[in-house]
Amino acid sequence: MNEARAKRILDELQKQGVSQMLITDPMSICYLTGVSMMPIERFYALLLKADGHHVYFLNHLFHVPQEVGVEKVWYSDTDPVAEIVAKYLDKDAVLGVDKDLKARFLLPLMEMKAAAGFVNGSPAVDVTRGVKDAEEQEKMRVASDINDKAMAQFKALIHEGVTEQEVADQMLDIYLSLGAEGYSFPPLVAFGANAADPHHSPDNTVVKPGDCVLFDVGCIKDGYCSDMTRTFYFKTVSDEHRKVYETAKAANETAISKIHPGVEIRNLDKAARDLITDAGWGPNFTHRLGHFIGMSCHEFGDVSSANTWETKPGMIFSIEPGIYLIGDTGVRVEDLVLVTEDGVEVLNHYPKTLQIIE
Amino acid sequence: MNEARAKRILDELQKQGVSQMLITDPMSICYLTGVSMMPIERFYALLLKADGHHVYFLNHLFHVPQEVGVEKVWYSDTDPVAEIVAKYLDKDAVLGVDKDLKARFLLPLMEMKAAAGFVNGSPAVDVTRGVKDAEEQEKMRVASDINDKAMAQFKALIHEGVTEQEVADQMLDIYLSLGAEGYSFPPLVAFGANAADPHHSPDNTVVKPGDCVLFDVGCIKDGYCSDMTRTFYFKTVSDEHRKVYETAKAANETAISKIHPGVEIRNLDKAARDLITDAGWGPNFTHRLGHFIGMSCHEFGDVSSANTWETKPGMIFSIEPGIYLIGDTGVRVEDLVLVTEDGVEVLNHYPKTLQIIE
Repeated sequence: MNEARAKRILDELQKQGVSQMLITDPMSICYLTGVSMMPIERFYALLLKADGHHVYFLNHLFHVPQEVGVEKVWYSDTDPVAEIVAKYLDKDAVLGVDKDLKARFLLPLMEMKAAAGFVNGSPAVDVTRGVKDAEEQEKMRVASDINDKAMAQFKALIHEGVTEQEVADQMLDIYLSLGAEGYSFPPLVAFGANAADPHHSPDNTVVKPGDCVLFDVGCIKDGYCSDMTRTFYFKTVSDEHRKVYETAKAANETAISKIHPGVEIRNLDKAARDLITDAGWGPNFTHRLGHFIGMSCHEFGDVSSANTWETKPGMIFSIEPGIYLIGDTGVRVEDLVLVTEDGVEVLNHYPKTLQIIE
Repeated sequence: MNEARAKRILDELQKQGVSQMLITDPMSICYLTGVSMMPIERFYALLLKADGHHVYFLNHLFHVPQEVGVEKVWYSDTDPVAEIVAKYLDKDAVLGVDKDLKARFLLPLMEMKAAAGFVNGSPAVDVTRGVKDAEEQEKMRVASDINDKAMAQFKALIHEGVTEQEVADQMLDIYLSLGAEGYSFPPLVAFGANAADPHHSPDNTVVKPGDCVLFDVGCIKDGYCSDMTRTFYFKTVSDEHRKVYETAKAANETAISKIHPGVEIRNLDKAARDLITDAGWGPNFTHRLGHFIGMSCHEFGDVSSANTWETKPGMIFSIEPGIYLIGDTGVRVEDLVLVTEDGVEVLNHYPKTLQIIE
């Protein structure tokens, strides 16, 4: 049990008057206990209590290799889970629940009035996880360093006649050979008009001269994620596509230049969006500027016009403006950034200058 | 929109006095609309209403290729999703919510009193999905037929010096070559004492003479899942291990022999468990006898001592008794079965006789 992290979460909860919280996100539990677990559909939770009597709820099917220093409560598939959990709750206090707690567990707890009220306690976990400690920052640097090296190799896979799927099929081996444990998400490879769909999955499309070649890729190293996008061009690039590219790149760089502690996150989104809008492609930037990232590739906290948080040293998130022209092309330029005491550290070092693949 | 399936769900809901339900499980939405979608952390829902005015909630980032015949409501990442959904709810009626609806969506709907009450409506969806129609039964037969053929090839991968991981790495290609779309779950390959952990993931363990070789594997074909376990022995098998194997196999066959419409499902678990208990290994059968399966590998409905449902024609589930001897060996014998009008059809035909791999 990482008591320093537990204390940061409990301190945040206390600000809302919450003294107990049921954490069910396996990543958040791993963040606190070091135990990596895939509970699939089974109930799996860590109850944090301000008095320090934390409880770890486990199905008999789970194997927890290490000692974690908190009371373990084991249940079987046929046990009434909510009733078991209720025994450990303070009925007269509000319970913070995980934002991902499923209705089939939450509704029975409510029905038996297992707590004085139920609130989403995840913001306390998420703001804690959103500020990476020194150990986490170093792991994130290493994961992004692998991603930089992998990008150079991915670019080299592009040649006449190759399909998106054929390229994607070689990526895992490249990551593994660079020391990663696996993907942080299934890689996106998109040629030409396919790149106009920000979530396009690799298919049998063959690359053509003049196509953009978009890679949105990331790996996991030591349990931490990388995530970067680069957009190249095959053989040649039209003047219009070059303009689109340079606009997305400038939006990425402008947003990054604004980062230092104490900036409202929505202003980063605005800086990038204004630049793209001024260039005439505002409606073609259809998503938020970025997302927080760490043990999960998409952690709580988005870099969008709706987020009024102020940046703090230790926050790590993506800056990924994109411009999508349906039926034509798509561009995205994405880096991970770390807010430092006096500015920003960009975790990706792979160049952003427009590159043509010969 | 498959109106016949929607009607079966709404009829079930009506028995609980529920006239509206918010379905968020992407598989259940696919079951009704044919749209396959991976919404990741974004809100994605189909609101079923008894008056037929169903509503489909979609993020602008999603691409829905086909027309589905229901009203679509699009939202953006910065929109207040719960408020948008609330506009389409009947505030004076109880809302059935998906068992998997997350607290971060459910709590705001409750706070704004968007419905007269909130109940877990998923049993209505689940009992409907639990009884497969003719089209689904045929797809399940085809997926299990591929799994039978794959098992023969997996067995042939075992040879002196091979590791679990090396075997597992070849499985996807075998499934794809047999026409499957992919795994229904990451394959489990366990040699010797590793098989004592029912969830052991393939690692670098090398097979040794006398080891059991357990494969718990499945593929997806046409959107439907297969799932089968067979346990072989490498070179030789001890008398004790043979007894363990024959007991697990007899438990599988005994449970299957009891299946016909109208049996309480818990009695199937009991038949298998009693047989294993009588042989002295009751405490070593640490999980339920089986699970429902269809578009998802683990669908709602377990074959356990807690399930008092009666079997109905069209139900498909696994029968997978296991015996786990920590530090020594493990055995599981698993088939998928379909309840028919007058008995049972076993969807797997791969032999269960003890086989020694030379």
